[in-house]
Amino acid sequence: MNFPTLYNARMIPRLSFFFLPLLAFALPNAALAEPSEVFTRTLDNGLKVLVQPDTRAPVAVQQLWYGVGAAHEPPGQTGISHVLEHMMFRGTERFPGESFSHTISSLGGRDNAFTGRDYTAYYQILGHDQLAIAMEMEADRMQNLLLAEADLQKELEVVKEERRLRTEDRPEASAFEQLQATAFHNHPYGQPVIGWMSDISQIDQKQLRDWHRRWYAPNNANLVVVGDVDPEQIFEMAEEHFGAIPRHEVTPAPRRQEPVQKGTRNVSLHIPAQTEYLLIGYKTPVMAQLPQEQRWEAYALSMLTSILDGGNASRLPKRLVRDRKIAASASASYSLYSALNSLLVLDATPSPGHTAEEMEQALLAEIAELQAQPVSETELQRARAQVIAHMVYAQDSLRHRAYMIGMLETNGLGWEVEQQLVAGYQAVTAAQVQEVAQRYLTDYARTTVTVHPLNVAKVPPAP
Amino acid sequence: MNFPTLYNARMIPRLSFFFLPLLAFALPNAALAEPSEVFTRTLDNGLKVLVQPDTRAPVAVQQLWYGVGAAHEPPGQTGISHVLEHMMFRGTERFPGESFSHTISSLGGRDNAFTGRDYTAYYQILGHDQLAIAMEMEADRMQNLLLAEADLQKELEVVKEERRLRTEDRPEASAFEQLQATAFHNHPYGQPVIGWMSDISQIDQKQLRDWHRRWYAPNNANLVVVGDVDPEQIFEMAEEHFGAIPRHEVTPAPRRQEPVQKGTRNVSLHIPAQTEYLLIGYKTPVMAQLPQEQRWEAYALSMLTSILDGGNASRLPKRLVRDRKIAASASASYSLYSALNSLLVLDATPSPGHTAEEMEQALLAEIAELQAQPVSETELQRARAQVIAHMVYAQDSLRHRAYMIGMLETNGLGWEVEQQLVAGYQAVTAAQVQEVAQRYLTDYARTTVTVHPLNVAKVPPAP
Repeated sequence: MNFPTLYNARMIPRLSFFFLPLLAFALPNAALAEPSEVFTRTLDNGLKVLVQPDTRAPVAVQQLWYGVGAAHEPPGQTGISHVLEHMMFRGTERFPGESFSHTISSLGGRDNAFTGRDYTAYYQILGHDQLAIAMEMEADRMQNLLLAEADLQKELEVVKEERRLRTEDRPEASAFEQLQATAFHNHPYGQPVIGWMSDISQIDQKQLRDWHRRWYAPNNANLVVVGDVDPEQIFEMAEEHFGAIPRHEVTPAPRRQEPVQKGTRNVSLHIPAQTEYLLIGYKTPVMAQLPQEQRWEAYALSMLTSILDGGNASRLPKRLVRDRKIAASASASYSLYSALNSLLVLDATPSPGHTAEEMEQALLAEIAELQAQPVSETELQRARAQVIAHMVYAQDSLRHRAYMIGMLETNGLGWEVEQQLVAGYQAVTAAQVQEVAQRYLTDYARTTVTVHPLNVAKVPPAP
Repeated sequence: MNFPTLYNARMIPRLSFFFLPLLAFALPNAALAEPSEVFTRTLDNGLKVLVQPDTRAPVAVQQLWYGVGAAHEPPGQTGISHVLEHMMFRGTERFPGESFSHTISSLGGRDNAFTGRDYTAYYQILGHDQLAIAMEMEADRMQNLLLAEADLQKELEVVKEERRLRTEDRPEASAFEQLQATAFHNHPYGQPVIGWMSDISQIDQKQLRDWHRRWYAPNNANLVVVGDVDPEQIFEMAEEHFGAIPRHEVTPAPRRQEPVQKGTRNVSLHIPAQTEYLLIGYKTPVMAQLPQEQRWEAYALSMLTSILDGGNASRLPKRLVRDRKIAASASASYSLYSALNSLLVLDATPSPGHTAEEMEQALLAEIAELQAQPVSETELQRARAQVIAHMVYAQDSLRHRAYMIGMLETNGLGWEVEQQLVAGYQAVTAAQVQEVAQRYLTDYARTTVTVHPLNVAKVPPAP
């Protein structure tokens, strides 16, 4: 299941490179090859430039990552990072209206952007000799965004419609929003990335201008270029276009620490839907929040997720969907790379004649089994191969490689972590998978949302 | 059950005047007498002064109310209003250390303060000719608070201990905190008044200074004096002491609108406790948020609460505690006067041999009965008499009268509302009680917290 934690300006559903088809056991040698080198330089104003050359085709990807996303938003302004991302396509004085995107597409390139919990990122895919114009325009809108009132009113309507289509009309997305809002009491991941509808409605020009000024500083950004380019040339070009933008102090968002959860939380959600649906979330640590000596836990949680839901042979699709036929679909996901501690999420849609209640029993039985018995070496190897193959094949996409560099850097992990991932996964043992299952996937740390289809809207008005 | 939504600097449990013993049917004529007049004047700097003369004894109560409380707090700074309240007793240059309270007590007076969701208030009870010094000191600490680092470190420890004693070591209070945090997803009442422990720990001097500067403005305050005083003299005295304090713009807290709840939320809480315990909260509107023509709903919800839990003859104590003997205690409460929409709360502790599960069934059966059948005229009269008698007897306390004036004024209702309360309650019909039960006490709007006693602390560490 794709949960909506990423939003982008043109409503392309979640970045498709996450879902490349994978070959399970046919692990190529490339898996163990050294990843290409990343060259970095930090400009005087704090902008970090990261370049990974790849000469296979005469193209390049530029991504500009800002360290601001939904998790930085204050209450009453949820969704503002994403609205600002939309407004970034509404022009500056020099490049008015939609001339940014028109310029890129007139060069045969593509551009877009996405907003997540921890970041907002803008990207262009271009011929390798056309980066200068992309940099010029990015540097321009980092400083000189117009944010015209008339454009804002239009974009707010677009975003509200996006929320209706992608959250309110999608039972799984509504359930996911409830899951996070209920699991987190003092943690910004409780806030939806798209924002609460009432907050979106009240975002104004001044707030957006303040948000842009506060966060869109060169010292709060990472510029990533991957492709057929020369790092030195890129550094010079970055200096030329971004070098004159002044650094300014970025006040961090307030730290919020989630209180320890002390028991299961269950939410019923009566909304229009075709079938029942079940979501379970467990509070789990992520790599960026674990001390170095405990980072194996994050790898083990990833492997556990892959054992449940990594390819057709994994437990959830095999057991619940194909063998027992009680579920139409069942999946698991875990946010290894999040900046803040997050949820390991299981979900299942019952097949006709079956219920969400059965899904809950089946999923909890899977967790209980992971806690009671170590997984077999065969299964572990298959899961490991899945995870690593996924990573390796994804390397084929320039955009994905830029994404990994930018995301790891922006989330505080550092791009170098990518080079440790294969070793991290390979080191996970069956005992470790069992240990994290016992430690984190407990009833104390669990939140469950059940969707009950409502055919007639009989929800009472809000008080 | 007293839920901790009010905190004061010296940890006196919730203001005792709420719990005066009441005579159910012996409604005195005073109930229908005109309440004493309130004289008001607004100084040029925006400070509103409200005076209610009462010559029965040569004493006076002064209360200074600021329009800031837990509901105004940003995430990461929950509890800051209450910490500031504590620091207000730590001195200024002119009245250093604890000389404020020492001065008041050397005059035979008493002083304290309390912090709620919607306000922070300071009060003194003094001889009627000693108000000048109280005003002088209040005006001084409105502007010149020291907020010394050493004092802050001490007070933070005091407040953390207060949180341990009053929330973490009290299962009912922990459950209430969970109830609010789970019921509200985008509403400041989800935040505890005392603050999350991790937030309290990180409150610093600069934040407190900013909080004090931002909110402690004369134009964000109401000064209430009740007692044997002459209104004109009080206005002059207020002008003398507060008149020179400059008005300044107070940026309001962001508005947050709670999304419509679409199904029951159930929380299990495994904590050290003697017995199981059950809390149910329904999202309900409050008077301040209802349009004038719908305010009867708030009165009807109050009457409904009194029918369930207003004196020994009311339904919960009679049926659950005395007749069926399944509950050791059972109660109901509703926040008629809150600034923002809140919860109507039911709770019950099972008697030995009974369970929280039975409490839930019994309480839900009570709600179902209120929805299915109108209450009898006799019951309605008894509940009305309870509510009105409560109000009338409470009038006997100067402090309570000042409290009602200050609270109604600060919460946006206006002190005049008090004079309409009796008529409001008297107008409620059995059909209206049934109507609000049907409209608001639904499964869609319900959140339940169940405490399961945990004898050994086996909660896993936080991720």
